[in-house]
Amino acid sequence: MRKAVKVHGNEALGFRYGWAGVVEGHTVRLDLNNTSGILPRGGTILGSSRTNPYAMDGGLDKIKETLAVEAIDMLIPIGGEDTLGVARKLSDEGIANIVGVPKTIDNDLSATDFTFGFQTAVQIVTDAIDRLHTTAESHNRVMVVEVMGRSAGHIALWSGMAGGADAILVPERPFDIDEVVAHLRQRHDRGKTFSIVVVAEGATPAGNEVTATAETDAFGHTRLGGIGVFLEEEIRERTGYDSRATILGHVQRGGTPTAFDRVLATRFGVAAIDAAMGGDFGKMVALRGQDIVRVPLGEALAESKLVDPDLYATAETFFG
Amino acid sequence: MRKAVKVHGNEALGFRYGWAGVVEGHTVRLDLNNTSGILPRGGTILGSSRTNPYAMDGGLDKIKETLAVEAIDMLIPIGGEDTLGVARKLSDEGIANIVGVPKTIDNDLSATDFTFGFQTAVQIVTDAIDRLHTTAESHNRVMVVEVMGRSAGHIALWSGMAGGADAILVPERPFDIDEVVAHLRQRHDRGKTFSIVVVAEGATPAGNEVTATAETDAFGHTRLGGIGVFLEEEIRERTGYDSRATILGHVQRGGTPTAFDRVLATRFGVAAIDAAMGGDFGKMVALRGQDIVRVPLGEALAESKLVDPDLYATAETFFG
Amino acid sequence: MRKAVKVHGNEALGFRYGWAGVVEGHTVRLDLNNTSGILPRGGTILGSSRTNPYAMDGGLDKIKETLAVEAIDMLIPIGGEDTLGVARKLSDEGIANIVGVPKTIDNDLSATDFTFGFQTAVQIVTDAIDRLHTTAESHNRVMVVEVMGRSAGHIALWSGMAGGADAILVPERPFDIDEVVAHLRQRHDRGKTFSIVVVAEGATPAGNEVTATAETDAFGHTRLGGIGVFLEEEIRERTGYDSRATILGHVQRGGTPTAFDRVLATRFGVAAIDAAMGGDFGKMVALRGQDIVRVPLGEALAESKLVDPDLYATAETFFG
Amino acid sequence: MRKAVKVHGNEALGFRYGWAGVVEGHTVRLDLNNTSGILPRGGTILGSSRTNPYAMDGGLDKIKETLAVEAIDMLIPIGGEDTLGVARKLSDEGIANIVGVPKTIDNDLSATDFTFGFQTAVQIVTDAIDRLHTTAESHNRVMVVEVMGRSAGHIALWSGMAGGADAILVPERPFDIDEVVAHLRQRHDRGKTFSIVVVAEGATPAGNEVTATAETDAFGHTRLGGIGVFLEEEIRERTGYDSRATILGHVQRGGTPTAFDRVLATRFGVAAIDAAMGGDFGKMVALRGQDIVRVPLGEALAESKLVDPDLYATAETFFG
Repeated sequence: MRKAVKVHGNEALGFRYGWAGVVEGHTVRLDLNNTSGILPRGGTILGSSRTNPYAMDGGLDKIKETLAVEAIDMLIPIGGEDTLGVARKLSDEGIANIVGVPKTIDNDLSATDFTFGFQTAVQIVTDAIDRLHTTAESHNRVMVVEVMGRSAGHIALWSGMAGGADAILVPERPFDIDEVVAHLRQRHDRGKTFSIVVVAEGATPAGNEVTATAETDAFGHTRLGGIGVFLEEEIRERTGYDSRATILGHVQRGGTPTAFDRVLATRFGVAAIDAAMGGDFGKMVALRGQDIVRVPLGEALAESKLVDPDLYATAETFFG
Repeated sequence: MRKAVKVHGNEALGFRYGWAGVVEGHTVRLDLNNTSGILPRGGTILGSSRTNPYAMDGGLDKIKETLAVEAIDMLIPIGGEDTLGVARKLSDEGIANIVGVPKTIDNDLSATDFTFGFQTAVQIVTDAIDRLHTTAESHNRVMVVEVMGRSAGHIALWSGMAGGADAILVPERPFDIDEVVAHLRQRHDRGKTFSIVVVAEGATPAGNEVTATAETDAFGHTRLGGIGVFLEEEIRERTGYDSRATILGHVQRGGTPTAFDRVLATRFGVAAIDAAMGGDFGKMVALRGQDIVRVPLGEALAESKLVDPDLYATAETFFG
Repeated sequence: MRKAVKVHGNEALGFRYGWAGVVEGHTVRLDLNNTSGILPRGGTILGSSRTNPYAMDGGLDKIKETLAVEAIDMLIPIGGEDTLGVARKLSDEGIANIVGVPKTIDNDLSATDFTFGFQTAVQIVTDAIDRLHTTAESHNRVMVVEVMGRSAGHIALWSGMAGGADAILVPERPFDIDEVVAHLRQRHDRGKTFSIVVVAEGATPAGNEVTATAETDAFGHTRLGGIGVFLEEEIRERTGYDSRATILGHVQRGGTPTAFDRVLATRFGVAAIDAAMGGDFGKMVALRGQDIVRVPLGEALAESKLVDPDLYATAETFFG
Repeated sequence: MRKAVKVHGNEALGFRYGWAGVVEGHTVRLDLNNTSGILPRGGTILGSSRTNPYAMDGGLDKIKETLAVEAIDMLIPIGGEDTLGVARKLSDEGIANIVGVPKTIDNDLSATDFTFGFQTAVQIVTDAIDRLHTTAESHNRVMVVEVMGRSAGHIALWSGMAGGADAILVPERPFDIDEVVAHLRQRHDRGKTFSIVVVAEGATPAGNEVTATAETDAFGHTRLGGIGVFLEEEIRERTGYDSRATILGHVQRGGTPTAFDRVLATRFGVAAIDAAMGGDFGKMVALRGQDIVRVPLGEALAESKLVDPDLYATAETFFG
């Protein structure tokens, strides 16, 4: 935005609440004043929604109207698979000039090394696991930490590795509750008095591809009383250990972003403006190693990124 | 400990796992080496338990035996109402020379301005609430934060004030769910899109002195699927808002203590050694303003400290 | 402020840049909108200055004019000795109705257990000392941490205790550089490879009541290249150890306040409004134990609070 | 290490204080017990030194002796250019089987996207800059933040971008003090009251390739009273603004590593063991995008990584 305004002299317009704002023409002019000081803040100053214009009557027509009324030359949508999926359709259908920016704490876009928001979420969970480690004060305690990740377990894997978890359960690998419990028993039989289990909200017991615990509500989130509570209770009943769940919920989404995410967001933003000003539309900016590159939206959204089996194997080395 | 060893030249012995260690004679010699570097760590290097020697067959005899075998001159138990309640009986019955140190995150001892552990717990919850505030990204969202506090709501009140909560529910004031929901509706009708409700685990709906949600398990803690989940669901169903619970659990108990708690713990420790070396037994050290004083154990444990109605009224000013 | 607007229905006016704003009539209306969300932010939304209206020509007349023009009924100045010293004179001379609020990171007001800002500064320094402790990676290293505190060493003493410093130098106790060096040598001769020295910016070598290192500049702060650099160099030259200074500077003044300080500020604010609305002027609100009380401004400013010798003695126990 | 012991059943030996330990045969056996719990701690449990065996009489012979006496099959040195430079020679000369691990907060190894320690240092500086931002309370203040980086400005550039610095001075681009001052004046003339300048310790004024401020002492570090103090004073004298330096020093090196660095260190360690067990010596493990790869030591150390001009240009967009 800053680059757009400062170097190119254009007007920058923000849409409130994601695609809902585009549909309804709900805009706010962005300038150097009202964006000053937002760097260290988490969340969004524009708001978000789960509105899909393709799933509503006349949504597309309203978008066309907004683009015409506001004389919009190009759109720079920021979001994950859902947000950018709409962007891709608008681009493919020639409705709007699009450069997408990948932002989701789930990190499940295969075209980019990292989406922004992810490292911040991992750090928040890691800090919580660190605190749990120091409460290993009594015999045979198991801490269950439920983290975000409905279809991919990146947050669980990274925070579990960083925090030194003794087991990490991810959606990509349905777990056998008997094996989990046996593993914990072995640890404690060998003299450990404390175990930490990190579980992604979308992890499921094997043979239970659709379980009650994994159902999502109207807002698209797993219901509480979900997998964390399930595990807490199963482990307590099967082992007699003092088992406790911690459910961080939206705490993972908020607050001051890490330095890594701020630099990434800044680079993505500048690169998106560069692409847009150069007329290179239908792309998503992406991190590849040390570089920011442009990837066709279609390719960027072709498949979700799941946890890397090699990385999971590295984590397993430490399950002890 | 350090003062005991360094200035007085005594031997310091730690008992593992609280009273369980005294009953079983499970000791560890504490010296300048094995206690070096523990200041910034949370938790305990000795462990804890919920063992009550008065509630077990022969517990008292075993304690007497340990005191004799190890030639213990004095005991400096560290803990809350339960731990110090045992200490008081041992002192009253002439079984041991006692100087107690108040440590509990619940802050429910009336004889001291603060117990140590409390400000650290408040800080952890406040950090979480800060993060939730920045996720106020979509319309009509309510965040429910369940915090520790079975019979007293100090953590909820302090962290709710520090974090700018829109409602604070404590055990001392059974709440009317209709009023809570009406308050949230009023806020959102006035244009607010986001509310934060902080609830102590022991808070109960009015007229429900014993509810399912407040039951405690064998480990003495409120069961998960407790009041936080109850509120999340009630609010969602009654308002249609997107309601979410965060349950921090034992994260509140661990990790690096705040500077305030470290200074308090250091002062309590030195003051307890001073009292013990001066033969002033049957006392608990306590913070009163800027001073550390000694209070008879009986007086110190006479009544629990509940949240101050004036402080709650100050918090209410900001419920908006 | 919130209490003033919400409960009492008054208008609240903020003056920019402290007394400078009152002199120049530089005001900003404070309401529930422009103060929403400021709780977790450090610093001030109003700004500050070192303007003393009594030290400028016609300053007092301009203040009288502002009070008349804006029809100000009462002033609630927030600050330390300098700010409240002006307030006291205005109050004594019958120029304005005053209720003062103690805010200074120096904590040097004797009438209140704590001023707000102090615990936040202590926490920031303690976090830095914690980080330094883990860099004890090579032989014979000494870390010098220079902290704020021109005439009182509260920040140095508290953060040194919380961080486990091996020496704490405060303005109240001019130090003998020979003794400091001898103490460090003894530690290292006994096998320690690492020492941390915390020094208040106003600490001075004994017999050097006015040294070059302690001079203050036009902004009232000790010049850099001050006592921290002096100690770093003296220790390096006298011992041959690898000595390093860390100078946190204004980092100590900023950022998210601790939960303790936020609750304290909230209580002070509400109590000041209560006093003002009750017409109880010429007072400063103060923390005494668990209570907020009102103290006559004259008494509140009668003498500075210096570090408590008993607390310093407790810290010394750990200098080892 | 863990992987070496657990999966491969080998003995792992740590050398104290880097190459000094290898020269002197100062070892410590590493096992699952004495390495348990070290994940969240910063620094090193082994210690470090600046010993270069090639620069001392008989250093090489002593290394050969240690390798023979301890029957060492392979060495896994962890460090930056200096440490790995020695490793490379030992490898080239056939003296030891080597797999190197890149660890330096300076991030100046071109073969790897990141060295571990770097992101943690960046985060610490960013947190400090965030705090400084909130102290923008009075007119015309300039904060100078001196950070590590003798020959490369990576920490300055990343933390400056993440923290929203108004100027970033790095060793790769000698600065013109007139230009720096003119830039600050322009900002303040346009109404800004506050500027933040981040400067790497090795940054130098243009035309002053060797200045007094950049000299390093026997320990290889820039002397304090270095470039930060120089800038503070130059800016104050030339502009009359209230200029202040913050010098974080070794605070940047210590404390709990970020989650990013912990995952990186874990992956590097496991990858180094894999390479060593597979007999693939003379390599350094490196991060390339999402993968850990092996790079010949000669290639890895061929040239230092300097700050990327494109990344610097992105940062400049925001200097405003």
